[in-house]
Amino acid sequence: MLALAGYPLGFEFLFLDPATDACASSLGEQIRADYSDEKALAEFCGRVDVATYEFENVPVASAEFVAARVPLRPHPPALLAGQDRISEKKLFERLGIAVPPYAAVSSRNDLIAAVEQLGLPLILKTRRLGYDGKGQARIRQIADIEIAWKQLGEHPLIAEALVPFEREVSCIGVRGIDGQLAFYPLIENVHRNGILHTSRPVLDDPLHEPATHSVKAVMEHVGYVGVMAFEFFVADGRLLGNEIAPRVHNSGHWTIEGAQTSQFENHLRAISGLPLGSTALRGNSLMVNFIGDTQSLGTLAAKRNLHIHLYGKTPKPLRKIGHATLLAESAAELGELEKLLFA
Amino acid sequence: MLALAGYPLGFEFLFLDPATDACASSLGEQIRADYSDEKALAEFCGRVDVATYEFENVPVASAEFVAARVPLRPHPPALLAGQDRISEKKLFERLGIAVPPYAAVSSRNDLIAAVEQLGLPLILKTRRLGYDGKGQARIRQIADIEIAWKQLGEHPLIAEALVPFEREVSCIGVRGIDGQLAFYPLIENVHRNGILHTSRPVLDDPLHEPATHSVKAVMEHVGYVGVMAFEFFVADGRLLGNEIAPRVHNSGHWTIEGAQTSQFENHLRAISGLPLGSTALRGNSLMVNFIGDTQSLGTLAAKRNLHIHLYGKTPKPLRKIGHATLLAESAAELGELEKLLFA
Repeated sequence: MLALAGYPLGFEFLFLDPATDACASSLGEQIRADYSDEKALAEFCGRVDVATYEFENVPVASAEFVAARVPLRPHPPALLAGQDRISEKKLFERLGIAVPPYAAVSSRNDLIAAVEQLGLPLILKTRRLGYDGKGQARIRQIADIEIAWKQLGEHPLIAEALVPFEREVSCIGVRGIDGQLAFYPLIENVHRNGILHTSRPVLDDPLHEPATHSVKAVMEHVGYVGVMAFEFFVADGRLLGNEIAPRVHNSGHWTIEGAQTSQFENHLRAISGLPLGSTALRGNSLMVNFIGDTQSLGTLAAKRNLHIHLYGKTPKPLRKIGHATLLAESAAELGELEKLLFA
Repeated sequence: MLALAGYPLGFEFLFLDPATDACASSLGEQIRADYSDEKALAEFCGRVDVATYEFENVPVASAEFVAARVPLRPHPPALLAGQDRISEKKLFERLGIAVPPYAAVSSRNDLIAAVEQLGLPLILKTRRLGYDGKGQARIRQIADIEIAWKQLGEHPLIAEALVPFEREVSCIGVRGIDGQLAFYPLIENVHRNGILHTSRPVLDDPLHEPATHSVKAVMEHVGYVGVMAFEFFVADGRLLGNEIAPRVHNSGHWTIEGAQTSQFENHLRAISGLPLGSTALRGNSLMVNFIGDTQSLGTLAAKRNLHIHLYGKTPKPLRKIGHATLLAESAAELGELEKLLFA
């Protein structure tokens, strides 16, 4: 989606991806190599003017190797900030951003202590490399402690209190090389089985302003350039920082049709030193992910004002194979179209 | 732009283009060959499910070669209908579509007779292969006859009366395999030096309805599938048919941002048998072509609500190297932004 947004700006793309079925490979040359393959990284650096990533688990050493040779935006400290859930939470706290109660867990005794301290239910997560509900276990009762420990105990872990929240929201911001900032309206997200299901921007949400302050604080602290997403829980009407993603984010896919400038174009504008584009809404929109599989293309194409985005991935349980954005002129019309969408 | 619209639908693309600098070559594999290269055409046909074109001067023999092997949409009779300006005008007349006075010219004597019959000024055009003002000469006075004849006399020609028109408009329609029809709102076009300069859709234009009737008549007559553009002059408040283009059209580029479904996506939907998407407007829009060269990317990117489309072509006098679409919520705002655009 970055490449699709970038070709109209006259940009060209080279991809480094270890996957044999990388979606982007249709849209430009792919160097197929591991992120740690220094020969491939060096070739990549020799052929680009600026580098970026859309996957937060790129090894920091690889990012540093690239950054030493060519501008890498966001730069390695920004990537590092979100890779370990404990240091991420500590950063939030240092910046005055409230977080749910949590504890580091590196032994069975730590886990027992965390249950005593945080209470139940809680969620146990690997400190690194988790996404889409992977590397997570819920502990609802004492008997779950041992099950969770067996599942995840070999990794460094974090235990987080499962705060009863009213909503999950995210704030997507973009920061230019010159420090220029722009924020999309606050986004309401619904997850199913730990995977994002729907996202919708909310105009004039009272939490928009405080959410942008948190994004701004993190961006300025790490010297961020590009698009960043910050996910929050809303509990008792207040934001609790969950995690940041140093990249374009699934909860912002609606911006392709639903905002004046998409998050993809704004990321490219930011990393290439162009002025940022407007983040204003265009009508009412709603994004829904296609997880595992989806209706046929013909069925989807028959739905009014539905904008289809298939990623060319083989359907597989729990895999995101695409998304679609529903557009409407009013909230009422959006509600009507949404009913037809899931009918 | 077709490929950029098609990847999100999960489509893949193979291009056949004789050019060494084909814009599309970044977006998929290009078979670089002449349109008449049957070996290349056969290879192309063996690798695609459906074929189309976005250039009306593909030789009909090549189109027929392809159509014998794989579905080609629109099919060769549709391509043929617009390739010769005389038979195109005769088709319009047969379908009851008014045209400006014209005469076929195949000798100097024909040309003199045409001047006597049509009066001055008139425009002399090659019957085939003209575009963007190429293959045309204006005759304003008797002395121009000889100049025009020297310039174009070796080709079969058409002389057309230069009707004093109030507006130039186009109507873009799309027809599905099943005959389903959809039309974008009527578009007002301004040409400079015979090259399209700006296009803007007009909501509720009284000529929208009669224009769609003409498009429908041609489409149904030739069994058209895909997007077609029909250009008209408006003289004394009436439509006069100028020419059709059997393809996505420059005057519809604003549909990428300014319509619910772009002309590119609707062409792909039509030729692949999907339901057509809505052609409704999204706000107010205006498209401006970049001819020859343009302002820097940074300057363009700083203009509010301007959506940039560069084609990766080397700047050259009179060459279309890109376009941009300006978006606004109201006609008044569009007017304000337009002033800044050309400031």
